[in-house]
Amino acid sequence: HLPFALIAGPCQMESRAHALEMAAALKEITETLGIGLVFKTSFDKANRTSASAARGLGLDAALPVFAEIRESLGIPVLTDVHDAHQCAPVAEAVDVLQIPAFLCRQTDLLLAAAATGRVVNVKKGQFLAPWDMKNVVAKLVDAGNPNVLLTERGASFGYNTLVSDFRALPIMAETGAPVIFDATHSVQQPGGQGTSSGGERRFVAVLARAAVAVGVAGLFIETHEDPDRAPSDGPNMVPLAEMPALLARLQAFDRIAKAV
Amino acid sequence: HLPFALIAGPCQMESRAHALEMAAALKEITETLGIGLVFKTSFDKANRTSASAARGLGLDAALPVFAEIRESLGIPVLTDVHDAHQCAPVAEAVDVLQIPAFLCRQTDLLLAAAATGRVVNVKKGQFLAPWDMKNVVAKLVDAGNPNVLLTERGASFGYNTLVSDFRALPIMAETGAPVIFDATHSVQQPGGQGTSSGGERRFVAVLARAAVAVGVAGLFIETHEDPDRAPSDGPNMVPLAEMPALLARLQAFDRIAKAV
Amino acid sequence: HLPFALIAGPCQMESRAHALEMAAALKEITETLGIGLVFKTSFDKANRTSASAARGLGLDAALPVFAEIRESLGIPVLTDVHDAHQCAPVAEAVDVLQIPAFLCRQTDLLLAAAATGRVVNVKKGQFLAPWDMKNVVAKLVDAGNPNVLLTERGASFGYNTLVSDFRALPIMAETGAPVIFDATHSVQQPGGQGTSSGGERRFVAVLARAAVAVGVAGLFIETHEDPDRAPSDGPNMVPLAEMPALLARLQAFDRIAKAV
Amino acid sequence: HLPFALIAGPCQMESRAHALEMAAALKEITETLGIGLVFKTSFDKANRTSASAARGLGLDAALPVFAEIRESLGIPVLTDVHDAHQCAPVAEAVDVLQIPAFLCRQTDLLLAAAATGRVVNVKKGQFLAPWDMKNVVAKLVDAGNPNVLLTERGASFGYNTLVSDFRALPIMAETGAPVIFDATHSVQQPGGQGTSSGGERRFVAVLARAAVAVGVAGLFIETHEDPDRAPSDGPNMVPLAEMPALLARLQAFDRIAKAV
Repeated sequence: HLPFALIAGPCQMESRAHALEMAAALKEITETLGIGLVFKTSFDKANRTSASAARGLGLDAALPVFAEIRESLGIPVLTDVHDAHQCAPVAEAVDVLQIPAFLCRQTDLLLAAAATGRVVNVKKGQFLAPWDMKNVVAKLVDAGNPNVLLTERGASFGYNTLVSDFRALPIMAETGAPVIFDATHSVQQPGGQGTSSGGERRFVAVLARAAVAVGVAGLFIETHEDPDRAPSDGPNMVPLAEMPALLARLQAFDRIAKAV
Repeated sequence: HLPFALIAGPCQMESRAHALEMAAALKEITETLGIGLVFKTSFDKANRTSASAARGLGLDAALPVFAEIRESLGIPVLTDVHDAHQCAPVAEAVDVLQIPAFLCRQTDLLLAAAATGRVVNVKKGQFLAPWDMKNVVAKLVDAGNPNVLLTERGASFGYNTLVSDFRALPIMAETGAPVIFDATHSVQQPGGQGTSSGGERRFVAVLARAAVAVGVAGLFIETHEDPDRAPSDGPNMVPLAEMPALLARLQAFDRIAKAV
Repeated sequence: HLPFALIAGPCQMESRAHALEMAAALKEITETLGIGLVFKTSFDKANRTSASAARGLGLDAALPVFAEIRESLGIPVLTDVHDAHQCAPVAEAVDVLQIPAFLCRQTDLLLAAAATGRVVNVKKGQFLAPWDMKNVVAKLVDAGNPNVLLTERGASFGYNTLVSDFRALPIMAETGAPVIFDATHSVQQPGGQGTSSGGERRFVAVLARAAVAVGVAGLFIETHEDPDRAPSDGPNMVPLAEMPALLARLQAFDRIAKAV
Repeated sequence: HLPFALIAGPCQMESRAHALEMAAALKEITETLGIGLVFKTSFDKANRTSASAARGLGLDAALPVFAEIRESLGIPVLTDVHDAHQCAPVAEAVDVLQIPAFLCRQTDLLLAAAATGRVVNVKKGQFLAPWDMKNVVAKLVDAGNPNVLLTERGASFGYNTLVSDFRALPIMAETGAPVIFDATHSVQQPGGQGTSSGGERRFVAVLARAAVAVGVAGLFIETHEDPDRAPSDGPNMVPLAEMPALLARLQAFDRIAKAV
């Protein structure tokens, strides 16, 4: 079992400069620690609680930035797609296409993502049992793309709350797909602030530690140099300055988890 | 308060002939009882558990059938859309665009549906609190379309199970939108049969009675002349032959519920 | 199917005078409407959120009051027991022994209640599936007491919230035991006010209407002449003055539900 | 932060000989590893799914065995109490009184346990939010007994399923009480086998690893030399032969979790 890889970045692409800065900072942090990095940021927040919330730079402006990050920094890039038509153009600029949790059963989106040949990371729907993700994997594999990642990001637990069921990690791993734990969205409180989603940042480290001890191929952690000023998911993002210590501790757990 | 309207039809459009037959049969049943009817059927089941499951006739074949039903039978027609691009063409053939529960927070889809000027029926996500549907209504109303219906179809309750929270009906009604209760999908067991969703038809009448007693503007009930042979949602559909007695009983409850 | 019976009264016995007054008032209301009444009140609130909360008159003071209500008003009386040792003495003063939801699997308490020969009303635990209540019924019936009632009072749904699953009513009825719906505790928000449980009184009528439409043998509704001053469960109790109109509407639903 | 202590033993006391053997075996295992041990076994399973299920040796037969284990092996002993009257006699034979999860809000039982002066370990109810355990702690502390332990053992998640919410560990630790994670009952499927509870032993190690990584004062793990022949909780118990390797791995995680 390989050490965990890190999927990290700011929730949304705020500007070219900000994205490049964050990617460079994360590259430096992870290189120092010897952790594999995939840079993540969204060009469009397509399902904000409110229509008036900031949605990001948009597809056309973002694609050249993704390409620039890959070329200038030499790190792979991940972003999420919301519509079958986006898959082909996005696939030219990024390494991993991510399927949002709400959309994890949309067959056309999955097939369009599979057709690009890129790695596809599917987030498990908050409404789905972990054993049902095998059907999602089958949709992709049967379409000819075996490069599938599965991500746990919390299950619905009453209203405005998610719970992380860590049994989901070994259950999803039985599909053969590498399993990622998204420590950012797992602490989200969907719709919990009236017109936006809340969250409890203090539980990111708690849940990430648990996930690594159980055993994961990767961790997904959104980060920002100043989360309280971020345009989305601020309550759940880890301040960039806290990432090195958090990751070092997680690496120590990971070594124990993967010792023979 | 008006008597409840009925949104009914087979889960998916199996053929022109089948759709026309079902629509005519439902028209006869509801005219006899004095119930307003909206005929519902899907041209595409876009989020089947398995990619190999039947998806329906498809958009191009279905639109003329919708038009024919409206013209020949004089009844309004509802169907669901899964992609922003579908909204405009579908709106030319039907009276109500329905937003599936998994997609109820996809801003682009909501805005495209709103832009058609048609009535938009949004199903509440299984992962969403009823009080958060006010944000969904706002997305549509702020886009200039106040013709919004909201449908309750069950909330996630552990794995492979939904629960109907009847407090959701008055809570969603506070938005001002007419509230529909979907008695078919509320008894669904998502993914509960391994590669397809299960359901318990015997609870359709139970939950429909509860909903009407609480008070609803409409009921959504899928029906089929032979549900066990239907290509989708068979376990939840009510046999057509049982509809008259079920509806008559529901009307009696509705009169009590709406008596001053 | 008989019309529903009503189990009603103030949450806790505040004083002899208050209990007698409430019982007389409820007797008058239900006689006028032709509804069978069982007077309910608790001599001890044994599981308050906080130890400093008022617990009621206590066993010794309450038993003579129960006896007096039965004799002077001629109505049957129900109260809850929390300990096997209480069953025999309480059974001498009341007609129905109630097992609280948290205690519905305590074998000794169930057997002691069964041994009294009185009717035993078991509330389904918030943590229990409705189909598992058949095991509870079997504990009582196998102990020689077939006089069992089962009461639905909400299932755990995330934290600090209950949800009423109306499928539970027909499922529990399959045991052969008459099924009661507790509209008071089903709207409770356990622990929801920090050091006491909250609740939403406005949903009592909503859920009671749903239950009657589905079909129940009885309704359980706590009431008080001034709920906001009651020592417990105030947020869930219906003002006494609102009971006649509520019950009359529920009777109308009940007639439809039980029409052949 | 001290290394985790282990509360372990067979679910129920099957015989004097079996209890002594298990205690001796666990003493040897934990001494070798340098782990503090509290021997746990139940004299009575008071809330079995079915009344015909085996309940254990009973109070009178068990107390001398507890005393013998303490004296002959020099290890502290824990057992659960179900009734206020049991607290005083049990407290003479054991070091820790445990309050079962279903009974965690029974004030009389808590006060009787507190009055013994013994350490009281309260399991969080499956129906309770972690932040509401502060009220339980207050009942004990206000009664003069600050020696309180809190144990997480799963929260209700739909029917017949529990989920372990690891946020509960730091939340309950805010009370100041040491927090234990019960890895045995957290994998229980309440009522999941019709007339008995099921469970998935394979997840015991998964959840125990997660808990230790998050940080706990203790772990609760039931074990048996042949779980599939045990009279209760067999599906959840860890075979004794697997305990040394499991504990050694957990110790490694614990050291990382508690490194400064």
